[in-house]
Amino acid sequence: MTGASSENHWAERCLANMRETVSLLAERAPLLAEMAEYHLGWTGELTGQDRYRGKMIRPMIAILSARAVGGETAAEAAVPLAAAIELLHNFTLIHDDIQDNSPSRRHRPTVWAKWGEAQAINAGDALFAASHLALLHAAERGVSPQVVIDLIRGFDATTIEIVSGQVLDLQFEQRQDVSSAEYIGMITGKTARIVEFAAGGGAWIGGAGPDLSAHLAEFGLALGLGFQVQDDLLGTFGAASDTGKAAADDIRRKKQSLPVLLLRQSAGPDDRERLAAIYHRAEIDPGAVTEVLELMGRHEIEAQVRETVTRYHDRAVSALTATGLGDHALGPLMDLTRRLESRTT
Amino acid sequence: MTGASSENHWAERCLANMRETVSLLAERAPLLAEMAEYHLGWTGELTGQDRYRGKMIRPMIAILSARAVGGETAAEAAVPLAAAIELLHNFTLIHDDIQDNSPSRRHRPTVWAKWGEAQAINAGDALFAASHLALLHAAERGVSPQVVIDLIRGFDATTIEIVSGQVLDLQFEQRQDVSSAEYIGMITGKTARIVEFAAGGGAWIGGAGPDLSAHLAEFGLALGLGFQVQDDLLGTFGAASDTGKAAADDIRRKKQSLPVLLLRQSAGPDDRERLAAIYHRAEIDPGAVTEVLELMGRHEIEAQVRETVTRYHDRAVSALTATGLGDHALGPLMDLTRRLESRTT
Repeated sequence: MTGASSENHWAERCLANMRETVSLLAERAPLLAEMAEYHLGWTGELTGQDRYRGKMIRPMIAILSARAVGGETAAEAAVPLAAAIELLHNFTLIHDDIQDNSPSRRHRPTVWAKWGEAQAINAGDALFAASHLALLHAAERGVSPQVVIDLIRGFDATTIEIVSGQVLDLQFEQRQDVSSAEYIGMITGKTARIVEFAAGGGAWIGGAGPDLSAHLAEFGLALGLGFQVQDDLLGTFGAASDTGKAAADDIRRKKQSLPVLLLRQSAGPDDRERLAAIYHRAEIDPGAVTEVLELMGRHEIEAQVRETVTRYHDRAVSALTATGLGDHALGPLMDLTRRLESRTT
Repeated sequence: MTGASSENHWAERCLANMRETVSLLAERAPLLAEMAEYHLGWTGELTGQDRYRGKMIRPMIAILSARAVGGETAAEAAVPLAAAIELLHNFTLIHDDIQDNSPSRRHRPTVWAKWGEAQAINAGDALFAASHLALLHAAERGVSPQVVIDLIRGFDATTIEIVSGQVLDLQFEQRQDVSSAEYIGMITGKTARIVEFAAGGGAWIGGAGPDLSAHLAEFGLALGLGFQVQDDLLGTFGAASDTGKAAADDIRRKKQSLPVLLLRQSAGPDDRERLAAIYHRAEIDPGAVTEVLELMGRHEIEAQVRETVTRYHDRAVSALTATGLGDHALGPLMDLTRRLESRTT
């Protein structure tokens, strides 16, 4: 098995583990499983690219990282870790949607919009608890108890990073002077640390020593940052036909993502004042969106953001190379990196 | 050391562990630690019985249970477990206050009332993640990795029980036909399972085998149920001077606790209709509170609830006796049980 068929195989293995874990919730309170299954896209209407398994990037990185250091047996041992990471990610999404007051995700009502905030908080809490049970399955697959403990520690430390990133994200919404450096710090916690843990934890469960695991963790961190900055790039400059969202949707939604932060830093006093005036409005109309895009054009923001993405992807590739693993072992991770780099959605 | 001074010693050990864990949050996002420390009563104004360490019942049960089976060394090994359980309990309180829309706890604004719902969700999430890190400290105190894994599994399974109980509690608020049996099922999850885990997990970390641990778990489950039902008793029939709340506060707040559920079951059609009419009102005024108390008097509800408490406490004592441990070993747990049985606040 190579390439796509192999990735499908591992995605299926991971999904089977996730389903088994979510079924534990059904035993205790049916509503908990109902909310989790809906959020995960296993029930309810979903079409095309919104169908679950959409990306499964985080679990795939854990499995491919384990496989790179230890082959198929290592990949199999990493399945519980992969499932746990994907469940963790989804718990944070359920709570994020409440916190951001987002009524829809993947073209469907969010969990809180459907069941109310109180029960949606429960859905997230239960999914987070269950994600630990998924990870503990590794102990039943020949992974040593000490390694499992190391992974649980990394798992919860990562969660604290994610939540800290979310704390900052909410705080930044109240400010108009967030620097791009502060922003990178925030997305490091909110988005990149879980990819770092997936890659480093996958290597650790796959039998890598501390140095090799650290190289793979570094790869994950850079890839995660590149992923988020590319999201920002697509949210402002992506073609509507590709992303399925309105063009420059992030501007319309007044999202404080990297392009607008860089514009604020690059602009002179006049342009900065103009920008502040636009972002102080209750709504940004199409005319104002065009104006912001023009300001961005004048300051070459798209190129700046694109360079940032390239820098992170280069750093990811360097970290992979530094592992000293052969081309054959690294192939799938290199492929994944290239695929993410050229994505348009 | 015996009695109160010994309990103080262990409470201080547990608090030191909790502080160390919460300080991990300060490193990542100061606001997270600020919210946690405030909620835990370590900062801000607190007076008299509201001062933290108020009860610390759950961690004390974990430590005393470990000590009963393995002496002082076992008690020391159980400190990380005790700290983790108290942090877990407090995470659920932070989220419960959001879900119940409660503006105050222990005579102070709740976390969400002070920092908003979005950040309060983060505070709970981070505290729950951190509680795992507290528990993992056991691995650094000579507790075997396998036992630590067993405890993490129990910890997260218990959390799912707590959240399931909270799911039911919220669902019951929408219903007027909840039976006392359904109610006991709900409080088993929401309140009693964590006490069961504290006692059983404490024994396990203290070196007890499966049978002895199961007896102590059974003790904890019965004690937890007795504790909750006594809360219900005090909330309806407790003297205002003792509880610090208005007399019959649970009736005034239309809380669906055991007394009113038993009244609904015991009452004939006329009284039941009268009760339904009162509980359908937007507010229950003092006259209506008196009327409900009269109905409860007619159907001897206080005696029924008191018998339920006694039954659970008897079951707790029987479970302790069934351990076969001597009076000396069981003394502190027996004392605690008696103290809880006779509490008036």
